[in-house]
Parts: sequence; C-alpha cells; structure tokens
Amino acid sequence: MVKVGIVGGTGYTGVELLRLLAQHPQAEVVVITSRSEAGVKVADMYPNLRGHYDKLAFSVPDSATLGACDVVFFATPHGVAHALAGELLAAGTKVIDLSADFRLQDAEEWAKWYGQPHGAPDLLPEAVYGLPEVNREAIKGARLIAVPGCYPTATQLGLIPLLEAGLADNSRLIANCASGVSGAGRGAKVGSLLCESSESLMAYSVKGHRHLPEISQGLRRAAGSPVGLTFVPHLAPMIRGIHATLYATVADRGVDLQALFEQRYANEPFVDVMPAGSHPETRSVRGANVCRIAVHRPQGGELVVVLSVIDNLVKGASGQAVQNMNILFGLDERLGLAHAGLMP
Amino acid sequence: MVKVGIVGGTGYTGVELLRLLAQHPQAEVVVITSRSEAGVKVADMYPNLRGHYDKLAFSVPDSATLGACDVVFFATPHGVAHALAGELLAAGTKVIDLSADFRLQDAEEWAKWYGQPHGAPDLLPEAVYGLPEVNREAIKGARLIAVPGCYPTATQLGLIPLLEAGLADNSRLIANCASGVSGAGRGAKVGSLLCESSESLMAYSVKGHRHLPEISQGLRRAAGSPVGLTFVPHLAPMIRGIHATLYATVADRGVDLQALFEQRYANEPFVDVMPAGSHPETRSVRGANVCRIAVHRPQGGELVVVLSVIDNLVKGASGQAVQNMNILFGLDERLGLAHAGLMP
Amino acid sequence: MVKVGIVGGTGYTGVELLRLLAQHPQAEVVVITSRSEAGVKVADMYPNLRGHYDKLAFSVPDSATLGACDVVFFATPHGVAHALAGELLAAGTKVIDLSADFRLQDAEEWAKWYGQPHGAPDLLPEAVYGLPEVNREAIKGARLIAVPGCYPTATQLGLIPLLEAGLADNSRLIANCASGVSGAGRGAKVGSLLCESSESLMAYSVKGHRHLPEISQGLRRAAGSPVGLTFVPHLAPMIRGIHATLYATVADRGVDLQALFEQRYANEPFVDVMPAGSHPETRSVRGANVCRIAVHRPQGGELVVVLSVIDNLVKGASGQAVQNMNILFGLDERLGLAHAGLMP
Amino acid sequence: MVKVGIVGGTGYTGVELLRLLAQHPQAEVVVITSRSEAGVKVADMYPNLRGHYDKLAFSVPDSATLGACDVVFFATPHGVAHALAGELLAAGTKVIDLSADFRLQDAEEWAKWYGQPHGAPDLLPEAVYGLPEVNREAIKGARLIAVPGCYPTATQLGLIPLLEAGLADNSRLIANCASGVSGAGRGAKVGSLLCESSESLMAYSVKGHRHLPEISQGLRRAAGSPVGLTFVPHLAPMIRGIHATLYATVADRGVDLQALFEQRYANEPFVDVMPAGSHPETRSVRGANVCRIAVHRPQGGELVVVLSVIDNLVKGASGQAVQNMNILFGLDERLGLAHAGLMP
Repeated sequence: MVKVGIVGGTGYTGVELLRLLAQHPQAEVVVITSRSEAGVKVADMYPNLRGHYDKLAFSVPDSATLGACDVVFFATPHGVAHALAGELLAAGTKVIDLSADFRLQDAEEWAKWYGQPHGAPDLLPEAVYGLPEVNREAIKGARLIAVPGCYPTATQLGLIPLLEAGLADNSRLIANCASGVSGAGRGAKVGSLLCESSESLMAYSVKGHRHLPEISQGLRRAAGSPVGLTFVPHLAPMIRGIHATLYATVADRGVDLQALFEQRYANEPFVDVMPAGSHPETRSVRGANVCRIAVHRPQGGELVVVLSVIDNLVKGASGQAVQNMNILFGLDERLGLAHAGLMP
Repeated sequence: MVKVGIVGGTGYTGVELLRLLAQHPQAEVVVITSRSEAGVKVADMYPNLRGHYDKLAFSVPDSATLGACDVVFFATPHGVAHALAGELLAAGTKVIDLSADFRLQDAEEWAKWYGQPHGAPDLLPEAVYGLPEVNREAIKGARLIAVPGCYPTATQLGLIPLLEAGLADNSRLIANCASGVSGAGRGAKVGSLLCESSESLMAYSVKGHRHLPEISQGLRRAAGSPVGLTFVPHLAPMIRGIHATLYATVADRGVDLQALFEQRYANEPFVDVMPAGSHPETRSVRGANVCRIAVHRPQGGELVVVLSVIDNLVKGASGQAVQNMNILFGLDERLGLAHAGLMP
Repeated sequence: MVKVGIVGGTGYTGVELLRLLAQHPQAEVVVITSRSEAGVKVADMYPNLRGHYDKLAFSVPDSATLGACDVVFFATPHGVAHALAGELLAAGTKVIDLSADFRLQDAEEWAKWYGQPHGAPDLLPEAVYGLPEVNREAIKGARLIAVPGCYPTATQLGLIPLLEAGLADNSRLIANCASGVSGAGRGAKVGSLLCESSESLMAYSVKGHRHLPEISQGLRRAAGSPVGLTFVPHLAPMIRGIHATLYATVADRGVDLQALFEQRYANEPFVDVMPAGSHPETRSVRGANVCRIAVHRPQGGELVVVLSVIDNLVKGASGQAVQNMNILFGLDERLGLAHAGLMP
Repeated sequence: MVKVGIVGGTGYTGVELLRLLAQHPQAEVVVITSRSEAGVKVADMYPNLRGHYDKLAFSVPDSATLGACDVVFFATPHGVAHALAGELLAAGTKVIDLSADFRLQDAEEWAKWYGQPHGAPDLLPEAVYGLPEVNREAIKGARLIAVPGCYPTATQLGLIPLLEAGLADNSRLIANCASGVSGAGRGAKVGSLLCESSESLMAYSVKGHRHLPEISQGLRRAAGSPVGLTFVPHLAPMIRGIHATLYATVADRGVDLQALFEQRYANEPFVDVMPAGSHPETRSVRGANVCRIAVHRPQGGELVVVLSVIDNLVKGASGQAVQNMNILFGLDERLGLAHAGLMP
C-alpha cells in the first residue's frame, strides 16, 4: 500500500486526486495539507467525498509527516514545490508535482514566463517530465516527476506521431485549443463566474500563454529539432475538457496517417486513436484518464488536422499524476484509472 | 460471475448500466438488444465505452439468448417488459425492470396513467418494488423487480422517516422537484434540445405526472394510511440530477428530526444524512449511487422541509438497478457502486 | 430628457440599467459612479455597451454631480443608499433604490435581517415600495422609491390576486423559488463559479433568507392581515431568471382562478397571465420586463399552485427601476421596456 | 411602413426575425407561413412574443398573400427559396433569402455541396450576396438578396481587410470556428439535445462543411485571386454565438494591422474593431447585430491571428437580413438593430 501525501489539496486537482485515489486499491492518502483550511475535513469541503474520507482533514504542511509518505503530490500554485521538493527527496519521499515548477528544463525560460526566479534549479536535471507515452522508462526510475499541463498533454499526444516520424513542416505548427473553466482553478475570479463564462466563448492569452514553452519543449524533443508553434487557447463554457485542434503541414500526401497514429499508440492504455473520420467529443473522456485522437486531412490537402481531447483534471492533471505513481511504484499502470467516462 | 442481459440499451439508462457494470467485478454483460441499432457496437454509439466493451454489439432481442442470462435488465419504454418478462421468468432468468411496468401494484391505476391496459397483471403479485431501503428482504427472494423511478426514489427516501414515525400530517404533503434533462431520455424531442432547455427553468405536468401514483403508493405503505400529495416536477437546465424539496407539516416541534433521519438510515450504504443545516447539491452525487438528505424546520415552524438529491441515472435508475442485482445474487451491495461523485 | 445618475454601476444591475437606458428615448445617463473603477470607461468593462456609451466612464461619487441629476439609481450593496439618499432628496433629486435599504417599513426588522442598524429611519415614512402593480399611484408622487427584490417581485405578483380576494388560507403559504446565478451578483465568490454552480441545483438559506420579511410584508398588505410564509430559495444553473412555484390552500373549489388572475392584471402592461394549463419558462422573459404567471389546481384539490417567472435583472431589478422612473416622470410606462425576450 | 412576409418562420431564424421586427418602427410583419403549424399563433409557439404579435398566426404559403408584401424573407431549409423566389420577384416583391439557395454564384458547385440540382440557376446572375460591408451599393438596387451564412459572415469580416490589402499568403488560410447549438436549428436531432451537446466541445464536418465554398467564394472576391482555406467548425456548448479564430500568414511584419482594420471598418455601423490586445467574447454580441474583431500577431511572428465574433442568429442571420432590408428600402441601416447585447 503506497502511503500518499497531498500538498495543497483544496483546489480542483486536489479533490480529483482524492476522488481517484479513493478507488485505488494500492494507495492510501494519509495526509493532505492546506494552510487556509487546516482542521477542515475534506468531506466537508467536497461533499462528493462523504463516505470515502470521513476522517481525513486538511493539516498545516509539516515536513516530518510529509516525509513519512512514500510519495507526495503537489497540487499547488507554482513556486510551492520549488521550496519543498528538495527536503522531501532528501527524506526519501518521491515527489509528483502537478504544478509547473519542474516542467521546463531551462530555469531561465521558466523565470521569464513565471515572472520570478526558479526556486530549485539544482533539481531540474533529475526532474522527469511525466508524460508516460514518451517517458515511461525514465519515470520508472525517477524521484521527481513534473506532471505535464493540460494543454501540453492534449497537444503533444496529438502531434508527436507526426513529429517523431519527421513528416511535418515543424516551422508552422498550430495548436488551437479550448479548455473548460476548471482549468482556471477554484480561485474566486470574476472571469470564472458562471455569469461571465457560461453561454460564451473567447480566446485568451493570444499574446503568449505559459503552456507555450512547455509544449514547444515537448515538440522539440519529439522532432529532434526546433519547432515553430502558434498556440491559441480559448475558454469554453463547460466545467471539464480540453479540445485541441492541431494543424500541421504534411507535404507527403501518400503517408497513411491513420496507421501511423494507431501504431504509435498501439500499446498505450490511455490513448485511444479513433477510427478515421471521427470527431472526438470532450464529454467522452469526462472523468476518465483517456486521450482520444482523430486524424484528418481535409480535402486531401497538405494541411493535416489532428483532433485530441482529454479531461483537463484527469489525463490533464490528477489522473496522469496517478498514472505516474503507478509506474513509479511498479504497479499496474491502470490501477484506479480503469473506469469509463461519464456520458451523458 | 453474473451473466447479464440488457433489453433496450440505447437510451441513457442503458449506457449508464454499461458504464457501471464495466467496473463491476462479479457481473458481465453478455447481450444487449436494440431493434433499431442491431449490429452497431455499443462503443461506436457511446464512445466513453471504447476500451471497455469493444466487442459487444446491439442485437435483435432473442428469447433464447436472453433466457440464458442470469438476469435481464429492461431499459425500455413502458409496455416492453410486460410483453417479455413472463417468458424470461419461466426460463429461470431474473428480471430487473427499470421501466414503469411493474411499479404500481394496481393494474387499473397503471392503465389509467399510462393510457393502455396493463400487459401482465398476473405478474404483479410477485413484482417487488426495488427500493432497498424499504424492501431489502423482499428483494433478496424476488424474481421480478420493479426499479423505482427517479422522482419517487428521491421523494420517498426524503419522506419515509417522517411517515413511518407517524409524525407528519399525511393529508398535505408537497414534493417540489426538479430534474435534469436526461430524465426525459435520449429521444429527439424539441423540448430537450439545448437551445430549448438550457438557460431556463420551468414546471411541467402540474396537472398530473406519471410518478405521482408511484410516489403516493410508496408513501401510503410507509404511513400505513392514505396520503394527500401534491407533486410539482420542474425541468432544470442540467444533464443529471434530481433535487426534491419536500414539505411536511409536523406539529410536534419537540421531535429531534436530525436524529430520526440519522437513525433511519444508519445502516444504509447509499443514503447520506447530512449534518443539520446542510443544503445538498445535486452535483455532489453526480455519477454516484447516493441519496443525500438534509432536514430543516425553517423559523421553527410546523412546516418541515426535507432536501433530497440523487443522480437520476444512478440512484434514480441504473445504479439502483445494480444495487438490486447485488442484493438478489447475494453479493456485497456496494459492488460496482462504491465510487465517489464527480465534482466539479 | 430625464438626466440620470447611477451610483455603484459596476454590478449586474448597473450594467442592465445601462443596457435598458441606452434604448430609452427620454432618459440620458449623465453620471455613473464607482470608487473602485473610477476612470474606467463603462464600455471597457462591459463590451456589450461599446458603441452605446463610448464616453461614459465611472467616476468617484460626488454629491454635486449626482444632485444635478433628475433621478439617481442606487445599484449598490445595502447600506450605501442609507448614507446618500437624504442629501440627494434635499437637493431635489429623486432616488430610486435597487438595494434593500428602504424595502422594509420597520427599521428594527431591517436591522435584524441585515445585521446592522438602519441608517436612515427618518426616510422610511416617505419611501414607496416600487411595485407598480400595487403602488402605482403612490409611485407617481414619490421622491424615494424602494425597488422590490427579485424573489419578492415574482412571489407577490403570483400570490396577491388570491390574497386580495381573501381566498387563501394565509397561514400556510409556500414560496418555492429558484434563481439564476446572477442573483448572487458579480462578486468573485467561489459559490458563483461556473465550476461550482453549473450542472447542479441546490436549496440555500432555508433557515431564513433576507427576502422573507420583504415578501411577508407585501403579502400582509395584500391580505390585510398577518401571513405565515415558508420561503425556500434555490440556486439554478443558469445566468438569469426567477421561477416561483407558489402553494396556497384555497378551500373554495368553485372560484374561477383563471378569471381572477386575468382580471387582476387586465390593465398591467408587464404582467402576462398565460392561458390555463400553461407552464411559463424563465427564458420566455430573458431580457424583458415581464412577469408571466399561470395558475393550476392539481387534481382539483385544495392546494393551488401558481407559477410565476421573471428575469431577475429586469422585472426583478433594473427594468422595474426604469418602470418606476417612467411612472415618476409622467412618461409612458413602457418606454425603453417594450422589447421582447431573447429566445432561444 | 414596409410590409413584410416570412416564409418558414417556425425555426430560430424565424423567431429572431419576429423579435427584431417587433421593435422596428418602419416594418410590419403581415404574413408568416408554415405548412406544419398553419393556424397556430406565433405567440403560442414562442411565448417571448406574447404581447407583440397576439394576432399573427402561421398560415399555409400562398402566392397572392406573399406577393402583396413589399419584401419576403425566406427562413427555410435549402431548396424552398429556389421554388418560390421567381414568382415573388415577378410580382414585384423583393426577396431576402436567409437560406443557402442563392449564396453560391456557381450552380454546379451548389449542386455538388447540397446534393441536388440548383432549382433556379436563371436567378443567380441577379442575386446579390448580402454582406453590407462588401456589397452595400449592390444591395441598394437588388431584388434578390442572399443573406450570408453565420460562419461565412464572421470569417469574411475577419479576413477581408488582410485580403483586400494583399497582405496575406492566400494559399494557407485557416478558419477555426465554433458555433453555439442554435446554428443546428430547431430540428429535433439527438446531437442537439442538451444531454448530448452541453458540457462538451467537438469538431464536426472536418472533411468538408457546406459553408466552405461560400467562404472561399467571398475570400476569393476580396483577394482577387484563388485562395486556399482550411475550415474546421466546432460545436460549442452554448445557445448562441460564433467565434472565429482566423490564421493568416503575413510576411510583412511592419504593417500596422490595427490601423488597417480600423480604417477598413471606420464607417461600418455593425463592425467593431476592438483595441489591440482584446479578446472578444461571443456573449458581448448576444442578441445584437454586431461583429467584434481583434487582431493579434503572437510573438511577433508571421502568423496573424484574427478573432471575430457574432451572434449567429443576428449578424449571422436575421439581424443581417433586417440590415439588408433597411438598405434595400432606403431606411436608416440601424433601424431595429441599435440595441446592445445582453450581458450577462
């Protein structure tokens, strides 16, 4: 039984970790921290968890308690894992960080996008980017895992088959993505109010979104060379879901893209390449740790369109974090993650 | 391993049965029927099930195949189970009917509300009303189970502690209920379109809804005497969820209602009596087989207000059906139903 | 041309006033105040107003500027109008208050429900409750108008025909109401986030909501005697709309309720008594200054059910405020308010 | 007073025409036809219109009655206007067609995309494409106007400044668009149910959508040369709104795109070029006849991103139709269309 700690569990990725781990047969949450909610039972804050964690309450973060865990998940704003990860690693605890703290390999670039110095650059060399479909072997031996962001997961899984095969013009990639509002977190922001975000659609951060360097880094690795990416995120009027519409120029019109994608993900338990002609719906993965992908070449032209959907809180965050934990501890990768999406 | 058949699985209760049974360790769906979709794979119709039922396809109903099952669920419009149940029972197959066909004990009353003669009045004496919190012992020995409707489940669970205790004025009960749109099924009706039902709230069937006699029958049993009930259903702009706001006059202002409810449901795995002062949200039970209840006595008056929420497709239909199956086959009642609700 | 000032225009009732007044041929908004947003153009905050108020910007409240207006609307939290109304009235400016400050005639009761002393009890005697269907004559001569709350508008319009006619048992009235999330205002509260309030329904404030004394006061006036009211508000997953389901015991089963309601509102431009058997939808009044009502007597029993819907931001707030302004200044009551609802 | 007829008024563009014309001071709807709903009052079908068209009822289409109108709007499926337009024109009645029947100048291309022969190729030479921002002069003298589709309106208005100026690489244009569900009409289709389309996002018709040739035709005219366009429509979980995210390669990085767009639309009453850096929201145009546009050049690269939003039922259909009517009859172009959007 893996003893699990969660730092910063009051947000949506925190409650989703709790929901998923509640049905995990080999893991047990022994501590969850929150300075602001210390003393509050998790089931009082999240009534969906009543009957599952009736004794678990938020506590003030404490190194000894966290260090006694086998693994600690960080479900925190950026900067927090920088401060605490080193101490936990020294105590022999594995760290799975759902924040952006260890996603970028380049501390300078991190500092530029996050507007503050990187707080733990010495840990970067050993941080493993936790996208199992790319890094499974490295994850197995890792101590510190950076769970990919939601947009980066959907986008990378949709594009890497093309890039790894060297088929696309890497200088002109486009990721036109939409996210449900839960991607903005549980913070009380006017823009996330139902009255502001429902019944509407809008682009945001077109000038530059923090997931851009993360996606570029991942695509660069897959391509083995620099890439030119335009990334336009949108806010969609729904709770959960990422929909990525990806555009890549593939001059070779003879290549069998459907076969390429099916082969790339043939052994992946959580990537579903749909039949040719499909249009994946975000709701088909609601609550499930699945990425569904479909490949199109409209009118037989050079421009290939890849559609990729995930639940931003599951395969885009907490589910992927649990998947990493399973790999890390040598468990069946599907443990706690095998359930189907909620539809309708 | 219980061999399961499903008749009429193309609707929302059908897909929800499949979703729940996919994670049930002791049951296997061996046949699912639909005349209109015969030959279509269930995972092609419901992509959330891809990876779970990749070989299962809808087939034309066939007595031999269904009769070889241990249990057959009917997820059909009313009238269908009337026609087929007898034959299955004769073959030794248990029948769990999610439709309204066997819910009313009085065939005349059924005929009046459903506008056609009852098709199997001879089976009524042995039909067990599948509300485990009331009928668990009878369910254990049943061959034919009528799964309660969604409004009836939320309403009965909210009112029976008062009625069984003889505390309420049974002549003036009110059930003011709201349902998500999935309660109207997957039929292509104008009133269920997103453009017609989102961003709006309305009452419907105030003159008389088919669940009224079912609720009245259940309340009458609990009270041991006739009841007077006004039932006003509303359509709420959401996919899932029943919210029942129940009004009962309880002249005895000294009774400890909180204790009454907690004691009544102390041993029930799927009824959650919330702390005094709570307001259950339908989303807290989304996807989960739970009824959450809170009891209020506003301004200390005679009128008691009980709030009761369920997911209409789970505790209000398919989850309750699986719960009945578990009881019927001597399994742990929680098998396949132990997961938490999806929140947010 | 009526010169209009608005105090506290950054919230939803403020922007709705601006939207309605933009199409009012006899009114002009000359000043709008907000301490926090001073200097910001209203069209920068509310892009729907681009092209309509391109020069109007929020300014710091200033007595001289406001006092030069013919009328000042308060679209503020409670307490603000208490502090400023007297000075404006002294300057000869009419005051139309959309907040709760002058709705209750009893300063003690106000203090009890709002948790602070009433700030202007001397003004209460002349404050007119701005429900035109009840108080039109008094409004004509008023200086200070308290615009009714949203729940109180829907509930009073639905019940007063019965109470004025002395038909109901006034000791057991029930108002089971649901509101869209805009009723909670534009404040950044977790409970109003899309991720918290969409796809869910819940009751709230069952113990006692601030609109309860306001509704009771209005019903008492209509009945000419004390009333016993149970009021249960609910939060519905939509932006706009109030749906009131009202229960009254009417022992006389011979009375023609449809005729009673039609006659009561025969000359009212903004109350629409629908045909017998109707179920008004909140969306039918979206954006419109209309209350639609339908009367039912389910199963011919004693309990009468009245359904009443409004747009909480229009007939429940800003539209009703403009209606009061029209009456106050001797204009056609329908000016600026004659448009149809937005459907779908 | 312009006498207006509407053919096929039971759908969403029909009711939206009625809503807009109800507040038009110079137009009167004298006849509205529907075979299936003949005899039904429009206010019984669309309760938002109660009080506005209390006598108007649907009637069976009749040439004499329609021919007595000054103008007839077709709010019909494709094919209907083909059959009736000629006769009306012969009677001296102007025709404004909201369907796709006369949008494509090439009858062969029309036949290919709509799967049936063009029914009135002889009328094509005089059909004017009713995009006022491009064709205002031609509209003034027209007899037969083809109102642009919703996606084509948003896309063309967003791209034509670049194409007219010869700035873009016309061979690689991308229109990534999302539509609210009302774009699918009021037909009872499973895919448009709230339970199927809310809380989800999906692309559709990636292989080829009927609006593709219409957009291409318009862009070709603007560019004066052939264009290569990839068009990917998406279904967004909301009632109204089109959001177009448009990608064009503009090698000249020195050009002032903001000034270009502002100048192009300086005199257009219904196109709003937002300040640099803006992200238009679809809700800002809800119910309003406005297209809001913002231009971005992310990271200063070659790829320009134009964001363009409209209400698909207003500037994308019925509002634009009324705008055409105003131009056609020499009225102020803003009559009946000057109101602000509904926000929140």
